[in-house]
Amino acid sequence: MLLEYKKIIDEEIVNYFNGLPNNGLHEAMAYSMTLGGKRLRPALVLLTAKIFGGQVEELMPMALAMEMIHTYSLIHDDLPSMDNDDFRRGKPTNHKVFGEANAILAGDALLNEAFSILLRTYAVKGILGAKASLLISECAGREGMIGGQIMDLRHEKVEATYEQLKVCHHKKTGALIAASLAAPAQYLGATTEEVQKLYAFGLHLGLAFQIQDDILDVTSTREVLGKTIGKDREAGKTTYVGLFGIDKSKEMAEEITNECIKVLEELPRDTEELKELTRSLLRRTY
Amino acid sequence: MLLEYKKIIDEEIVNYFNGLPNNGLHEAMAYSMTLGGKRLRPALVLLTAKIFGGQVEELMPMALAMEMIHTYSLIHDDLPSMDNDDFRRGKPTNHKVFGEANAILAGDALLNEAFSILLRTYAVKGILGAKASLLISECAGREGMIGGQIMDLRHEKVEATYEQLKVCHHKKTGALIAASLAAPAQYLGATTEEVQKLYAFGLHLGLAFQIQDDILDVTSTREVLGKTIGKDREAGKTTYVGLFGIDKSKEMAEEITNECIKVLEELPRDTEELKELTRSLLRRTY
Repeated sequence: MLLEYKKIIDEEIVNYFNGLPNNGLHEAMAYSMTLGGKRLRPALVLLTAKIFGGQVEELMPMALAMEMIHTYSLIHDDLPSMDNDDFRRGKPTNHKVFGEANAILAGDALLNEAFSILLRTYAVKGILGAKASLLISECAGREGMIGGQIMDLRHEKVEATYEQLKVCHHKKTGALIAASLAAPAQYLGATTEEVQKLYAFGLHLGLAFQIQDDILDVTSTREVLGKTIGKDREAGKTTYVGLFGIDKSKEMAEEITNECIKVLEELPRDTEELKELTRSLLRRTY
Repeated sequence: MLLEYKKIIDEEIVNYFNGLPNNGLHEAMAYSMTLGGKRLRPALVLLTAKIFGGQVEELMPMALAMEMIHTYSLIHDDLPSMDNDDFRRGKPTNHKVFGEANAILAGDALLNEAFSILLRTYAVKGILGAKASLLISECAGREGMIGGQIMDLRHEKVEATYEQLKVCHHKKTGALIAASLAAPAQYLGATTEEVQKLYAFGLHLGLAFQIQDDILDVTSTREVLGKTIGKDREAGKTTYVGLFGIDKSKEMAEEITNECIKVLEELPRDTEELKELTRSLLRRTY
């Protein structure tokens, strides 16, 4: 099901960048945006839109903005001074192709562009659009994703406890996934309780997703994952697999997935597709 | 006069960061925000607010957001893969103190925080606030400041013509200065013509400012400027002084300053303070 969404999102991204004047900055931005990837965050935006009666065309700019924020974070994460990754999705990383200076600016420009899209499409049209945009900015910022990235850097030097690791992943991965669910709901007039439930679901989903990532990092191959594997271990980063071993980590991913489904059942809406997506993420191999 | 504004802005910045929980990310963000600097952009926000009947307290968050965007661009600009500067305002640059990874994330977080502030304070409260925020995001992004930074990188390799240099500086320096004038006016209900006039004035002011920067880069000392001097020449960057020599560059800065004043005279508002500030920038020595 994720694949159906991926198709229309991939098309939209290509169209977006084809519509921009051809210059070095746009080329570097488009490169990382069209490298592929699961498109989980934009798919969650569109799926949530469906649950709350929104149209795909109406929510597509928000989906795009979420993918831009995610992609900028990957470009900066891959830099030599950060994770120093040469491959992403089976292709050379942004700075390998365009150089570090251009990669830093392409990342900056994608973050900035996400906010331009959110402001232009939603915030200038009304309060709900502005509130949804604010929710996204807070999830992406110092208390959310960037806060998690800083914790992650620290965990390369000092081993983290399970609790610290959980907080780190709630921020680093969970916050943006939670925003991909809560923001479209907010924009489409969901109640505060519904927005909060979706947010909580997103944090759980992010955690399950991250544990699965840790498992794949030791059980998969570079060919399948499209990125260098075993890097976390080499960097001395604390991971779920490192703390609990593979079998226990798999159990945990399954438990948290079940918790996710439970949270969804508390929502008086048709969340079948979202449940299906949640289960399919547990079975993913890349 | 700039000094009076600088004082209240400096205080506000310290208060803002004192209000955040003490962690490594906030420390790195606060470090560069409290290094000093002229506070030109936030001062322009407050000065424009005065012209259109706004209160200092009401526009201070916008002033802060502009300084955050400016500061993030300096942190990233100073990185080894960009301008590779060890000193800024007489102190070690962000990456020299916190390391490259933290400096990149502190820059990202400042850009993100600027949008959180704009959305929270202005956009969620009404359309004019959202429009003003959109104007800022466009001036800071791929068609504005970041677009200018990319051109600037290119001019290290290929000598630019006068026209190219002008476009580059309009984007790199002018756009954010223009936004510091046009956005508060927009928010405070100025007419479209007034917003456009202030925007045009800002682009001119940015150009005069940049020419002055080029002149100081060859006539001043590290002690006075607080940063490494002569770097642009070493990097082979095209500058006004390189293209026209010092005397002609000084003439140009003066001419453009006079044009600035002319644009202001077309505004049926009390712009005396803004004129005074414009003239004082021509006389600056750092």
